[in-house]
Amino acid sequence: MKKRWLLAFGALIAFVLSTAVLISQTSSKNAQAASARVSVSSDISSLMLMPLPQDIRPGTGKFRLASTATVYVSGNGHPRIYGAASRFMRNLSDRTGLNFMLEGYVTPQDTAKSSTIQISCRKAGKVALGMDESYTLTVSQQNVSINAETDIGALRGLATLLQLTTQDEEGYFFPILTINDSPRFPWRGLLLDVSRHFFSVDVVKKQLDLLSFMKLNVLHLHLTDDQGFRIESKTYPKLHEMGSDGQYFSQSEMKDLIKYADERGIRIVPEFDLPGHSTSWYIGYPEFSSGTGATFGGPYQIDRKWGRGSPVMNPIKEEVYQFLDVFFKEMSELFPDEYLHIGGDENNGLQWANNPEIQAFMKANGLASKEALQNHFNKRLQVIINKHGKKVMGWDEIFVEGVPKTILIQSWQGKEALYKAARQGFTTILSSGYYLDIHEPTDKHYLNEPMPDSVKLSAEERKYVLGGEACMWTEYVNAGNVDSRIWPRMAAIAERFWSAASVRDVEDMYRRLDHISAWLEQLGSTHESNVPVMLRRLAGVGEDITPLKTYADVLETVKEYKRGQIIRFTYSSFFPLTGIADVARPDAKTARQFRSQTAKYLALLKEIKESAAGKNATDSSKIALLDATRESLSAWLRIWKNNHDKLVPLLRKNPRLAESEEHSLSLSMASQLGLEAIDRLERGVAITPQWKYLAALILERAKQPRAQTDIMVLPAIELLVKAAK
Amino acid sequence: MKKRWLLAFGALIAFVLSTAVLISQTSSKNAQAASARVSVSSDISSLMLMPLPQDIRPGTGKFRLASTATVYVSGNGHPRIYGAASRFMRNLSDRTGLNFMLEGYVTPQDTAKSSTIQISCRKAGKVALGMDESYTLTVSQQNVSINAETDIGALRGLATLLQLTTQDEEGYFFPILTINDSPRFPWRGLLLDVSRHFFSVDVVKKQLDLLSFMKLNVLHLHLTDDQGFRIESKTYPKLHEMGSDGQYFSQSEMKDLIKYADERGIRIVPEFDLPGHSTSWYIGYPEFSSGTGATFGGPYQIDRKWGRGSPVMNPIKEEVYQFLDVFFKEMSELFPDEYLHIGGDENNGLQWANNPEIQAFMKANGLASKEALQNHFNKRLQVIINKHGKKVMGWDEIFVEGVPKTILIQSWQGKEALYKAARQGFTTILSSGYYLDIHEPTDKHYLNEPMPDSVKLSAEERKYVLGGEACMWTEYVNAGNVDSRIWPRMAAIAERFWSAASVRDVEDMYRRLDHISAWLEQLGSTHESNVPVMLRRLAGVGEDITPLKTYADVLETVKEYKRGQIIRFTYSSFFPLTGIADVARPDAKTARQFRSQTAKYLALLKEIKESAAGKNATDSSKIALLDATRESLSAWLRIWKNNHDKLVPLLRKNPRLAESEEHSLSLSMASQLGLEAIDRLERGVAITPQWKYLAALILERAKQPRAQTDIMVLPAIELLVKAAK
Repeated sequence: MKKRWLLAFGALIAFVLSTAVLISQTSSKNAQAASARVSVSSDISSLMLMPLPQDIRPGTGKFRLASTATVYVSGNGHPRIYGAASRFMRNLSDRTGLNFMLEGYVTPQDTAKSSTIQISCRKAGKVALGMDESYTLTVSQQNVSINAETDIGALRGLATLLQLTTQDEEGYFFPILTINDSPRFPWRGLLLDVSRHFFSVDVVKKQLDLLSFMKLNVLHLHLTDDQGFRIESKTYPKLHEMGSDGQYFSQSEMKDLIKYADERGIRIVPEFDLPGHSTSWYIGYPEFSSGTGATFGGPYQIDRKWGRGSPVMNPIKEEVYQFLDVFFKEMSELFPDEYLHIGGDENNGLQWANNPEIQAFMKANGLASKEALQNHFNKRLQVIINKHGKKVMGWDEIFVEGVPKTILIQSWQGKEALYKAARQGFTTILSSGYYLDIHEPTDKHYLNEPMPDSVKLSAEERKYVLGGEACMWTEYVNAGNVDSRIWPRMAAIAERFWSAASVRDVEDMYRRLDHISAWLEQLGSTHESNVPVMLRRLAGVGEDITPLKTYADVLETVKEYKRGQIIRFTYSSFFPLTGIADVARPDAKTARQFRSQTAKYLALLKEIKESAAGKNATDSSKIALLDATRESLSAWLRIWKNNHDKLVPLLRKNPRLAESEEHSLSLSMASQLGLEAIDRLERGVAITPQWKYLAALILERAKQPRAQTDIMVLPAIELLVKAAK
Repeated sequence: MKKRWLLAFGALIAFVLSTAVLISQTSSKNAQAASARVSVSSDISSLMLMPLPQDIRPGTGKFRLASTATVYVSGNGHPRIYGAASRFMRNLSDRTGLNFMLEGYVTPQDTAKSSTIQISCRKAGKVALGMDESYTLTVSQQNVSINAETDIGALRGLATLLQLTTQDEEGYFFPILTINDSPRFPWRGLLLDVSRHFFSVDVVKKQLDLLSFMKLNVLHLHLTDDQGFRIESKTYPKLHEMGSDGQYFSQSEMKDLIKYADERGIRIVPEFDLPGHSTSWYIGYPEFSSGTGATFGGPYQIDRKWGRGSPVMNPIKEEVYQFLDVFFKEMSELFPDEYLHIGGDENNGLQWANNPEIQAFMKANGLASKEALQNHFNKRLQVIINKHGKKVMGWDEIFVEGVPKTILIQSWQGKEALYKAARQGFTTILSSGYYLDIHEPTDKHYLNEPMPDSVKLSAEERKYVLGGEACMWTEYVNAGNVDSRIWPRMAAIAERFWSAASVRDVEDMYRRLDHISAWLEQLGSTHESNVPVMLRRLAGVGEDITPLKTYADVLETVKEYKRGQIIRFTYSSFFPLTGIADVARPDAKTARQFRSQTAKYLALLKEIKESAAGKNATDSSKIALLDATRESLSAWLRIWKNNHDKLVPLLRKNPRLAESEEHSLSLSMASQLGLEAIDRLERGVAITPQWKYLAALILERAKQPRAQTDIMVLPAIELLVKAAK
């Protein structure tokens, strides 16, 4: 009987038995882990924090999270801390699945002094330049405490604590440690250009959530430009009514945004770009432009193309200053921040040159250049802005002879301008080197140190460098791709602004960035999830997007301002941002990893060859490492070599992908080259002039952008080919 | 020399030659296709339209899209048609990559009468019940024309035209055809419960975009309930200030939403649920409740749990009616639709029973039951609503003896209530059978016919059935998963409401739904893209989510109201909606396809066996089909069988996934059972009682929900096991 039973059940029984063992193993494993609970020490190098705190003292053990965890706030913090604590618990719950027993939000009425998470703030913070953002975070076996001078510091501490969430087989925990932290620079911002493309309140709020998680504290809104006037004016309603296609923030929406930002310890700094970059102002009010004739050079239209338009404000009309006085009174009341940005960049001076009255005014007042006239305009504008209780900030161009020391210079032209201003006692922030729209890699921004040691600034002068702002100009950016243009690169810039200057280990930054990138996604960023959405649109319904993703993963959008040059005759606000160049992400991770592996491979090979030539014994672990690295490179190269055949049918089904066919073929051929180069390198086969010639031909062709993208593994393949010589 | 050259270049040359051939093939293929351009006829069965139009006449050939395409609007339509035409061109551009040469938006000033897309509307439509939504769409070789009585009809035509976008190797096109179309029912809506979970303006706008694409015309906002009061009241500000945790629509936001909906031909119908489901009203105004004592049964708190609360409005106080008069005057001015929904459902009557004054009032006025008292309240409320120019609608419960014929009944309890009302001359809409929150499959909703032939309603009575509304109640729905709860199922319901009753081919519906689902994604729905986001959160950073996705793809959240029963003691507004039950989507596609293949397989097997038993020759194509079907089933079963071992390490790394381990094992074992059943079936092996016993044991255990999900391939595996007997 027993035997027949066994035979009858065959595979099934064996299967049941094997899985039963699996289950019992789990239980005993858990029991073992539980008994070993306290002996785990946290190690700084395993922490996934960004920006890296100023001081971390690791301890031993874990604070275990349970659904009974509660938060208690004490001290005299601003009420915003209750919202922040509630959001923290919600995010922690979303991440861990722990259903904290909240009756509602964290409130001042909560009296659970025995709470496991204790927040204490000495006084209420005010969201303004110079706010105290320091905090101390202590995780012990029994509880977590955040102590801060202000609620804003506590908020920064909560961001750190959320990043500390870790898990093991037993559950979720925070590692035991103590952190003392405060920012290096007081001004750490992102400029978002909402004029060239408009972004809805929800999209901006999402950015505020992400900025706050990265401890950034300024969102600079570039509200007006040739392409759109994006804020409601009740005093001059034709500004937004005629200058925005209906796409603007109402004042109630802006108040909501300011409040939302304030709750997250973020200042909103508004920019009104003047006297140039201002076409959208004149659709409704042509009389304020410097145009001539009955229509003042109008009627003006919203500019649909990029670049600097010629319309510029009229600096010699008293009506213009009366208008600016009324308008900026309104805006100064709307925006609570002490700074108001007046732009000041890129006025080409054409309208001024063509206006006889303006020319006469310049002659009469001894203003020899357009710069002198702009300076005249700026001075009067500054008086108006100051009168309404605000300090003026502007781009490099406003920094001319005789401007008052109260202005703040935002440097986009280069660091020299920054240091020059600081040396003269002007406050400055750096944006040069942090332009997110030109598709540079993360490490380049990361290593862009505002004050390198090589710059001889006195301690006093250094205080004038307040920090920096990354700039998201939006010629080719809309709600569909904005997250992938800002994130995760912005997180590394946040570390540059917050952490010590000495924190500049690129490899460690990338290691932590992967982790932070996942957090950013959980907090709403679509930089990862929108890629397949866009690929599915490109591939068409029901197609397997794998080969298209393999291809897109090694692409980056062409750098700097090349995209505009390539599509010169067709670019406009209406250009569809759904192509392969919009899917491609800055600092393509796959390509970056391939480049880094190639460098590692070539260095190892060189080292081993040299040691062989010197008749030294080669370390066997080095050889194993070389083998592994070569295998990894070859595996990638084979995938790309073979991808073309898989991708071609899909490319041909979708006419808009036609331009990518040659590029995909180039990737395939270059990968074949790479494989042959490795083969020659390792086997020491001499290469012929013909091979060299053909390789150069293939690589040269492959380097040409197609569909506004570059293949980012080519530099590495080129290195392999060169090494094969 | 020649020979050495060939040897030296080895593989590379061969590779270059082969790819060169590839390229030349493309060019000649394109040339061939171009010459064959006009002979392609469009076939209804290849069209991917939803809802299916009333009348389609296919033609021969294609209208080719080029970047020179322009739109011209003529006639006397409402200006909303210009915005709709602009959005249409933008969507077409995003889909095709064609950079249409737009100077800006489509405007009345455009005079390009030679435009390729011509829209003509006879008169301006008003977004209201009964609006004319008919249109004629004609695609010819030279141009496209949409003719409609109103701009709203033209808008529906543009939705159809967008769905007609097709591509071939040469480019994008619309197939030549003529469509005459109009809706079957005038009321086609979605109810969105914004009280239990709140949704931001952007999330609601996205739903409006998607509803409009599916030709739906009502968004019913369930604005108030025990869990939140979601609309700003300027007359009684404590309603939203104290009843919403700050999560409400300001009046300016609501006006913006109403305008956005109007531009898309959608009515917004507001619901204020009374007299029950109203706890959130009494946080600020306890005196309007039916509670007793100095605090009127309060202080009340926002209800954090689900189910019907007991607080109910006091129907015997004149102050209550004065309040309602002022409040509904305000709301009637805010909401332009002629209907205002007063709820009326699920009052448990407890507060009334416990209030001596109310009991005395009932006795004095001969009101024998809580229903009679509620009727008294409703009658007075109806007078108030009517006084402010609105018609009243409500749930089944308001349909009692003596209500005026002007009210509209929304039936949630069943179709009988609907027909009863229609027979008595009351207008009605159907919601029973369209509850999206109980996770039923698409086809069940799709086949839920509001007026089946079996119902004997006269032609006159049928007119009282105005249509239907799907209901998205949001106990377990927030912005993270709302799209996957509404879409794409809602698209099939839209077809039920728009298309002829005879359109009910489930297989064809699913075929088209896949295509429509991709469009919905392109228009902003995250029902597809949010799945990997949620899986990445569950799996943790850097983990391969493939095995987790394989597992999640056969799961559905438990049906009906089981989820609440399972997590009874911990459910609340704060329950994290990030678990595997929130990733699992209704009508899991993989599971559905497996079930359908299994049914096909068993039918084929039966047919072939019977024909063999009858000694008839079996069709060889049938045998091939059986082989293919078996192979497809077996391949799936092997994947699921082997998935468990891949998934276990990941499940153990993430404590919150612990509950899924047994389920994953069950899936694996059930799949093993399925494979063995197929084997026995085909080889005709007799099964033992022991095998049967063990199979029953495994399946019974597997059917138990884990982590609030069910394994949806079990019914099919059970069929295989039963057949193996």
